[in-house]
Amino acid sequence: MDAEQLMRLAIDKVREGLAAGQSPFGCAVALGDRVLAVEHNLVRLTTDITAHAEINALRSACRAARDIHLEGAIVAATCEPCPMCMSALHWARVDAVYFGATIADATSAGFNELSIPAADIIRLGGSTVKRSARRFSTSGRPEMRRGHTRQRNC
Amino acid sequence: MDAEQLMRLAIDKVREGLAAGQSPFGCAVALGDRVLAVEHNLVRLTTDITAHAEINALRSACRAARDIHLEGAIVAATCEPCPMCMSALHWARVDAVYFGATIADATSAGFNELSIPAADIIRLGGSTVKRSARRFSTSGRPEMRRGHTRQRNC
Repeated sequence: MDAEQLMRLAIDKVREGLAAGQSPFGCAVALGDRVLAVEHNLVRLTTDITAHAEINALRSACRAARDIHLEGAIVAATCEPCPMCMSALHWARVDAVYFGATIADATSAGFNELSIPAADIIRLGGSTVKRSARRFSTSGRPEMRRGHTRQRNC
Repeated sequence: MDAEQLMRLAIDKVREGLAAGQSPFGCAVALGDRVLAVEHNLVRLTTDITAHAEINALRSACRAARDIHLEGAIVAATCEPCPMCMSALHWARVDAVYFGATIADATSAGFNELSIPAADIIRLGGSTVKRSARRFSTSGRPEMRRGHTRQRNC
């Protein structure tokens, strides 16, 4: 399972989430060839402000792996993880996170972001998680380009 | 419900968590006189790396309030929130967070912290959450002073 394949799973999950009225964020976690979790944002559906796609995916991945630590795992997030999610990825000790849209993209799409780049969380916190803002095909972020008229934070 | 009363609830919850073999962290959330949630760390019990006390408390508080936003709420955390938890408090739009032990205290007690002070997350991210490292009575953090021989991150 490479990052491109994993990102496609995350993107498909975003579409599923959008169809369910959720915010356009998805995340997938794999350990070797095993996909541990693919989740979308569930903040509004579950009335849980912490239910970002990455948090949901880490929770599911921990359950699937029966381990709180996911050493060697790679993560594909359709948008650059916010500080909450980047920190959670650190705690889970994943190996690397790949993302498509940036926090700046999300901000310009109308989401009310806590604007601390994932790279800063990694650097300031002394994390060993590798971060890659690899540019995936544009299909990786069409939803992010939609205009929103009000600030949203989920 | 003032911060001191709320912190006492959080501390009692820590003791409950310790008795259940969990890490010594507790958190309580109140809105006016209503206590919305009091939780301890559940990382090991639930095999969920995101289950820090503050995250658990916010999830419970959102359910109790039937709202993802907790404007006006105050939060007592027995230890300074890590970047994951501080960011979650921002997303939840709580009014203020009070804490006893600092991240530096937790580090010196053997916990493997992501060492970004809550104040930095607030400042860098442009959050409006008020932060108070008010010094509570020493009963607020006895567990944190226990020695640990190995690094822990939950």
